[in-house]
Amino acid sequence: MAQSRSPLDQLQEHLRHSQLLGSISSALYYDQNTVMPAAGAEWRGDQLALLASQLHERQSSHAYADLVEAAEAELQASTPAAVRRNLQLLRLELNRQRCLDPQLVALIAQAQSRGNAIWQEARRRSDFSIFAPALERLIGLRREQATQLAAAEAQQRSPWEILAQPFEPDVSKERLQQLFAPLQAELPVLLQQAAATQVSPLPELPEALQENLCTELLNSWGYDPAYCQRSRSAHPFSCTVGPKDFRITTRVVPDQPLSAFLATAHEWGHSLYEQGLPRTSNHYFPWPLGEATSMGVHESQSLFWECRVGRSRAFAERWHPRFCTGLGRDGRSGGGSDPWGGAFGFWRGLNPLRPGLIRVEADELSYCLHIVLRFELELALLEQDMPVAELPQQWNQRMQELLGIQPQTDAEGCLQDIHWAEGLFGYFPSYAMGHLISAQLAETMEQELGGPGAIEAAIAAGQESSLRDWLASRVYPLGRSVNAEELVEQVSGQSLSAAAFLRYLRNKLKRLRSDP
Amino acid sequence: MAQSRSPLDQLQEHLRHSQLLGSISSALYYDQNTVMPAAGAEWRGDQLALLASQLHERQSSHAYADLVEAAEAELQASTPAAVRRNLQLLRLELNRQRCLDPQLVALIAQAQSRGNAIWQEARRRSDFSIFAPALERLIGLRREQATQLAAAEAQQRSPWEILAQPFEPDVSKERLQQLFAPLQAELPVLLQQAAATQVSPLPELPEALQENLCTELLNSWGYDPAYCQRSRSAHPFSCTVGPKDFRITTRVVPDQPLSAFLATAHEWGHSLYEQGLPRTSNHYFPWPLGEATSMGVHESQSLFWECRVGRSRAFAERWHPRFCTGLGRDGRSGGGSDPWGGAFGFWRGLNPLRPGLIRVEADELSYCLHIVLRFELELALLEQDMPVAELPQQWNQRMQELLGIQPQTDAEGCLQDIHWAEGLFGYFPSYAMGHLISAQLAETMEQELGGPGAIEAAIAAGQESSLRDWLASRVYPLGRSVNAEELVEQVSGQSLSAAAFLRYLRNKLKRLRSDP
Repeated sequence: MAQSRSPLDQLQEHLRHSQLLGSISSALYYDQNTVMPAAGAEWRGDQLALLASQLHERQSSHAYADLVEAAEAELQASTPAAVRRNLQLLRLELNRQRCLDPQLVALIAQAQSRGNAIWQEARRRSDFSIFAPALERLIGLRREQATQLAAAEAQQRSPWEILAQPFEPDVSKERLQQLFAPLQAELPVLLQQAAATQVSPLPELPEALQENLCTELLNSWGYDPAYCQRSRSAHPFSCTVGPKDFRITTRVVPDQPLSAFLATAHEWGHSLYEQGLPRTSNHYFPWPLGEATSMGVHESQSLFWECRVGRSRAFAERWHPRFCTGLGRDGRSGGGSDPWGGAFGFWRGLNPLRPGLIRVEADELSYCLHIVLRFELELALLEQDMPVAELPQQWNQRMQELLGIQPQTDAEGCLQDIHWAEGLFGYFPSYAMGHLISAQLAETMEQELGGPGAIEAAIAAGQESSLRDWLASRVYPLGRSVNAEELVEQVSGQSLSAAAFLRYLRNKLKRLRSDP
Repeated sequence: MAQSRSPLDQLQEHLRHSQLLGSISSALYYDQNTVMPAAGAEWRGDQLALLASQLHERQSSHAYADLVEAAEAELQASTPAAVRRNLQLLRLELNRQRCLDPQLVALIAQAQSRGNAIWQEARRRSDFSIFAPALERLIGLRREQATQLAAAEAQQRSPWEILAQPFEPDVSKERLQQLFAPLQAELPVLLQQAAATQVSPLPELPEALQENLCTELLNSWGYDPAYCQRSRSAHPFSCTVGPKDFRITTRVVPDQPLSAFLATAHEWGHSLYEQGLPRTSNHYFPWPLGEATSMGVHESQSLFWECRVGRSRAFAERWHPRFCTGLGRDGRSGGGSDPWGGAFGFWRGLNPLRPGLIRVEADELSYCLHIVLRFELELALLEQDMPVAELPQQWNQRMQELLGIQPQTDAEGCLQDIHWAEGLFGYFPSYAMGHLISAQLAETMEQELGGPGAIEAAIAAGQESSLRDWLASRVYPLGRSVNAEELVEQVSGQSLSAAAFLRYLRNKLKRLRSDP
């Protein structure tokens, strides 16, 4: 029977099977982080390891390689571009898988799991020296991985660049330095200006009110419980469990009353992108073209809904009364019993522009500086032989230079993120790229929706669906047909740069600093 | 490396891998029934089918057969009985798997899925004729399955008996008829006596109160959130997702205010059994000995907590004040504003002894008669060539004979249960056996805990943990080392019979009919 099916059909069937396995892992991951009892962790780890090894075996097997080769052999001049691109992406990934020594893969998995455990302990005790040997080992293994992967690269790439490819295809150090230079030059200046603005008080919002506001937000943004499930987890995330099965999670953070609300906007942005990825034609799902193209693009979609929409003045105007009503105070009078003293104060509350030590709590002005710091340290560790022992001191010194503040402990310094504990190098820049991409796409969106102020006007009118529709027609359907930079160029007509992001920030800061 | 490990070690590794796959299915099933968005159903079906086929392949493969054979070849006079029993059970299951034509397996899976869908439609329209052809097909396929499986049977078994083996190992028609005869003779008489007792009113209990009472119940019965998770689902169930990861679900049913509370007791009973199965020595988990021995025994454990404990007078006395307080009424005065007019009325409320049309809503007196009806009809359909078209009329006539009532529609008659829609024949009697086993074990428990009244005394003192401890030392650790009847004989010293159950019912009815 197999003989009568075309190589492409057979390959599609193989990929679909792999997607099933991958999505089972996603379902288990979601369960693990939302409802699984604590004692289930060890067995769950074994379940996930089994699926991971099945998946790895499938995607590096000779049978699979033969399928890819057979499909390639049938390429003709008339073959659609989408098919070519799919096969190119599969070939690239296959070559990478097959370059790797399986023993190294196993060693990395062990070191990740061990690194994570040791990092938890080191962070708890706020003592980097506990974690240093595990980090050193992870760096060594990742360097070795980069060396092995170099054989699969069509072009010359540095070790850091090779490791960054899975997150941000085609990214280079030089390009990132080019993108980040204007940020390094201007963000500290903007932060200094922002220091003069008043910070709004953050009144406590009862947990039930935060929950209700999150539900209301999602409902107003087209959340459909037939396709999406929202739960609670320790850390907010979004995941896709099937082509029509999406999940997002949020959490209520003590002393950060707007955290759950903005995280809901953020995760919903990720989910909208996943929900909008192309699945209809048979060049897409379960092919690479039906997947998200990069972490940077993914982040641009979450940041658009969190920052560009959720932290906008028009949004603050619309939602301020609901927050006040939820608190049992009538905010429509614009003052008095309203804890923010009116919608403008609430808007300032949504935008506290103050440098802080923790990346995940950072505002729009300082966020990218946190990334620059990590990017430079990763390069130093992986490519410039910076001794691991120097990390805390280097971290603190650069924090001082970039943000003008210094952590008192390693826990709020170089131990704050999980990424290095799992040996993930090359991931952080995607977060900053997300800000740049979001801003540049938003400028185009604005032009196409009616010119300056069109996004805020849509939000003011409760017509966020027009923003979603634009993204759903211009961005989501591209899948992996283009990489992040090509996507931006195709949609905005210009190369990616920091210009739109800085324009957006300057304008926002000016409005935040003005009188209401 | 594999060569240096013993056949038993290799077999254990194989079984562990299978358990991982099976438990992944359980996790997906739990997710599906608690949080999965509706649109995820199709993909989830494909995920589960993939796991099922992997599992089937593993458990019927030549590689696995070789492992079993190699382990059997090493059996010696000194081999522990547990190892022998494990290998026997594995061999039996392997032979069954290998007797089956894979094409028949696929046809049955299709017919089950189709049967379920058609049954939903037929039930919605309350029209058996829509479902009849699908049922006829399922019966034909199951008969064929029984014919193929007969080759694996060590002894002569009828088709129905062969199909019942997976649920109730070693069960026979003759034995069931023997067990059920006293029930058929006496239950109708008891029901007539019960008709004279007053039925307590069922005041509405707000959903939040039902939730709180369920939580309180579980907490008082040793529920530990580190090992168990409780959620909501359309139908209550209990499942095991890992050796230390247990889940139960409940639902709130309109107009059945005690349903969630009693279902919580029921599912917790199932879960306690699973939690108590032996896993410590390497003859148990992941070997057959570490599994539940039969559906009847499983049901005996849920019924013990639901009926013997949760519907007991002592339990009603303890919980009546909490129900009243939850309703904002002080029940301790024994009347007045208390909707049950005191604890005795509340106890009667927990035990409405009235024949009804629906099995899952049946009380302790009529439940087994619902089973007798289904058992007889299954025999007629599978072994006595009763035409499928006659089912509604036969059902209604037997309902009249057994319970003195007749359904007005097929939906509340022969279309009420899902079992036949999926071709599950041989399952129902386990429910009735659960009642008998529970009662017989409870008599022994009572003797060993201090004699008549000891169970109610423990409940009155809030010492249900002593009942659990007894089950955890006498019943749970047996796993599949014995079948259901052997278990009862080993624990109670007597063959299973209906005697203990009928004694329990007579006594309960007498107390319910007496003045408070």
